[in-house]
Amino acid sequence: MITNQRRVVDTPLTPLRFLRRAADVYPEKTAIVDGSRRLSYTEAAESAAALARAIAASGVGAGDSIAYLAGNSAELVIAHFGVPLAGAALVAINTRLSSDEIAYILDHCSAGLVFADGSLADQHGAVLASGAGELVVLPEQDGTGGTYESFLARGCAAAEPEWAVADETATIAINYTSGTTGRPRGVTYTHRGAYLNALGQVIHQGFDFTTNYLWTLPLFHCNGWCGAWAVTAVAGTHVCLRAVRGPDIWRLLAAENIDHLSGAPAVLSIMAEAAEAHPLERPLSIATGGAPPSPAATKQLKELRARVFHLYGLTETYGPYAMCEYQPTWAGLDPEALSVKLARQGVGMITADELRVVQTDPDTLELEDVPCDGVAIGEIVMRGNTVMKGYYRDEAATATAFAGGWFHSGDLGVRHPDGYVQLVDRAKDVVISGGENISSVELEQALLSHPAVAEVAVIGVPDERWGERPKAYVVLRAEKVATEDELIAHVKVKIAGYKAPKMVAFVDALPRSATGKVLKQQLRDLEWAGRATRIHG
Amino acid sequence: MITNQRRVVDTPLTPLRFLRRAADVYPEKTAIVDGSRRLSYTEAAESAAALARAIAASGVGAGDSIAYLAGNSAELVIAHFGVPLAGAALVAINTRLSSDEIAYILDHCSAGLVFADGSLADQHGAVLASGAGELVVLPEQDGTGGTYESFLARGCAAAEPEWAVADETATIAINYTSGTTGRPRGVTYTHRGAYLNALGQVIHQGFDFTTNYLWTLPLFHCNGWCGAWAVTAVAGTHVCLRAVRGPDIWRLLAAENIDHLSGAPAVLSIMAEAAEAHPLERPLSIATGGAPPSPAATKQLKELRARVFHLYGLTETYGPYAMCEYQPTWAGLDPEALSVKLARQGVGMITADELRVVQTDPDTLELEDVPCDGVAIGEIVMRGNTVMKGYYRDEAATATAFAGGWFHSGDLGVRHPDGYVQLVDRAKDVVISGGENISSVELEQALLSHPAVAEVAVIGVPDERWGERPKAYVVLRAEKVATEDELIAHVKVKIAGYKAPKMVAFVDALPRSATGKVLKQQLRDLEWAGRATRIHG
Repeated sequence: MITNQRRVVDTPLTPLRFLRRAADVYPEKTAIVDGSRRLSYTEAAESAAALARAIAASGVGAGDSIAYLAGNSAELVIAHFGVPLAGAALVAINTRLSSDEIAYILDHCSAGLVFADGSLADQHGAVLASGAGELVVLPEQDGTGGTYESFLARGCAAAEPEWAVADETATIAINYTSGTTGRPRGVTYTHRGAYLNALGQVIHQGFDFTTNYLWTLPLFHCNGWCGAWAVTAVAGTHVCLRAVRGPDIWRLLAAENIDHLSGAPAVLSIMAEAAEAHPLERPLSIATGGAPPSPAATKQLKELRARVFHLYGLTETYGPYAMCEYQPTWAGLDPEALSVKLARQGVGMITADELRVVQTDPDTLELEDVPCDGVAIGEIVMRGNTVMKGYYRDEAATATAFAGGWFHSGDLGVRHPDGYVQLVDRAKDVVISGGENISSVELEQALLSHPAVAEVAVIGVPDERWGERPKAYVVLRAEKVATEDELIAHVKVKIAGYKAPKMVAFVDALPRSATGKVLKQQLRDLEWAGRATRIHG
Repeated sequence: MITNQRRVVDTPLTPLRFLRRAADVYPEKTAIVDGSRRLSYTEAAESAAALARAIAASGVGAGDSIAYLAGNSAELVIAHFGVPLAGAALVAINTRLSSDEIAYILDHCSAGLVFADGSLADQHGAVLASGAGELVVLPEQDGTGGTYESFLARGCAAAEPEWAVADETATIAINYTSGTTGRPRGVTYTHRGAYLNALGQVIHQGFDFTTNYLWTLPLFHCNGWCGAWAVTAVAGTHVCLRAVRGPDIWRLLAAENIDHLSGAPAVLSIMAEAAEAHPLERPLSIATGGAPPSPAATKQLKELRARVFHLYGLTETYGPYAMCEYQPTWAGLDPEALSVKLARQGVGMITADELRVVQTDPDTLELEDVPCDGVAIGEIVMRGNTVMKGYYRDEAATATAFAGGWFHSGDLGVRHPDGYVQLVDRAKDVVISGGENISSVELEQALLSHPAVAEVAVIGVPDERWGERPKAYVVLRAEKVATEDELIAHVKVKIAGYKAPKMVAFVDALPRSATGKVLKQQLRDLEWAGRATRIHG
């Protein structure tokens, strides 16, 4: 038997180490570009330490929450280190939320301090002034204005913070999910989980110290999918982007020699369709998630020297948990067959645990994997280091989410014979027609493969014979035309005829939430008006 | 205050996950090439599971040690997973040790099973037959012979092992150090440490799923610097090499499209000087450690399209803990100035903790960092997840090694103004002359920069006036000549005159240990014969 020897305590895992190391190894390297401001890694580390000292001097610290209501800025990147350096948890709030929603979050997390961009402070002034923690107004992009500098000044005499954490399972951040029903829930991330998912992002996205990362993804989305920490781990350069606009993206791609960015498929469309689009000098890697990338945008971007790959995860999984890993054997596939492969959510990352598709026994809570046949539908469940600690101050919701020891995503998927998982629907969006499950995602993908279709949302609408039938709301591309019959015929050659939509409605835009999610609820309200239930069969 | 919510248990970190995932995601991809044998990832995972089942069926398991006495083979790669899969610790023994040393290790770790190559089983038959655990003879490179297959057969009926570990601080491996004095000590590695250092190797060496890794480094050296796990993490291909010979290396570089290998500087010389050397088709990344790479070999290899980078660590730090990270600002340096930069040991890796150079107060055991001036000499100390759990069954040595909470390497170094650490000597090899410390490593580097010098060892010899003076033992390159005066003059233009050797002795070969370390002790024996002490001043 191996006897125990003196246990030397392991260093707790924390992303704080990443900034400390980057500043030690690459002190002069540019850490953050924000408009005309350029901060070296020394300056970034000093700024984080100054923030931590001022937080401590304000009487806020271990176990407290600190909220940010800010666009992608140098200050928000720094907050990802300065706030946990003070022992507090960062709550980066979605800037498109309403005053009511913001008020709810500030109250729910008992924010000890609130940092806000000037324009957002004005917009939500009433909420920020009442009850919540002290308000600090962040500077403009040029570094002037606001009350941030004077806030920092109060920390001058405070002790230098330690770049370490005593307990790696301490909370580093709370991210509120933008639930379409009910109140937002606070998803808690640990130092350990953030550290490991950041390393996973480094490995899978291929970051290194030459990386110049353009922040097209909001930092308030899962801490930028842990990118705030991952890019810093390799001492790459963060290039802030305060609004996702084609001209700005294309200007920065060239000016800052960008090699990586991330974002929802909408970002890909904005890039591909921008008037400024042109083949890139440096190859660009684009990580997308939230929905499968459209084959059309992927193809357009490939011609511009950008490689698109597909990640999958939720706020509860620190952002990306899985990715559609490219298989060498796919090299011979024609573009259409390849795009079918690449639209899948894929496999768990190196730092993640398994990605399972299961049926849950409602009595025993036992999980049974569905067969790997690409047909049997189950719920996607995940667990491990890169799954949240729980919902903040909501033990009941946490217990429900982790029924059977695995996090239940609420997403429905299939597992293909090669083991790759494909999302077929959000649980509540499935259309059941004639007893058959129809995946609205699959149908949306089929419609998106038509060259005239820019955006699409599929919902179930009542049907006398079949219970429900799918209906598609379609936004056409600029200067393109298509008829309802043409689109239905197009779908029928792509997927089984019974899945084709009954009707197509052409609209100018889809209703979307503050985070850009399509509000199918609003579409259903239209279609199901006057009925008692939305289940019809 | 943040209240605690239901804690969902994190998945314990373990490299076992790497093989399970690689087999799930890339089942058909080649995991291991060993001579004419090629194992897919499915086959590798099945082989590891078969090994684990047979170990369990043999009554060996959790808390036991299992020894391997084997060259770089498919079986030894698989043992890195199959042994811990059975809950046991892998003890991969240096194949160049004597029967006595092997007997000591087998006894010290109470090996429950011993796996040996046929030739080594013959060579050490008496030791292996007596007392130690059951002997299993491994097959030849073509997969035939030995008793391994029949051993595996006994596990057929055993239960499928779980690809997980209950406690991430459990021991995954014990690596015995080849101390030049005293008995070998067993350095214990944990699942957590192996997992994290493997991810560090992936990031710093730049492994990905296209990686074809040539095993020039013995797998029994710190588990191949954790490469057995790191290459598997990205589902790269392990290409086994059973003896480090130029023709075999150059044949495999081409045949297997190798992009990475590692090894001591001697491997670099063998490669650079081989008759088969030619510019490579695929760029090759070579990680070297144990001693700084010689500028001459680095330059020769660069011309062949191989990039050399320099790692630093010890058996106690899972192999590499630090690396000489390349700075973008070095791009403008001339080759000589650059080689001076690259010969430094550098900075702690992303997954490591700090790399410190300290003076230890002998009474309080407090550590004080030396100034960053490139001159003040201190001891290199390290800690954290990628430092050993301790010396197996040697609490006293463990306590001494971790005096003050940091692992004391016994290596002496300086810290330069840019924060990079440079090893100046092994503690026992410092030459003290006229009260000045002279680094034998620095002097060896200066001599190696002469085009005629192939190998060199510097020791202190007695001197009436200065106490000690350095003396150099030099092996010249084939068909090159140089005189003592010429070499001393060469050194004096490189470094301070007082550091130049008093004498140069030309020899055909340096005395080396089984692991290739120069046995300076033997050289000192010659020089200090008849004296009571080896300190002279």
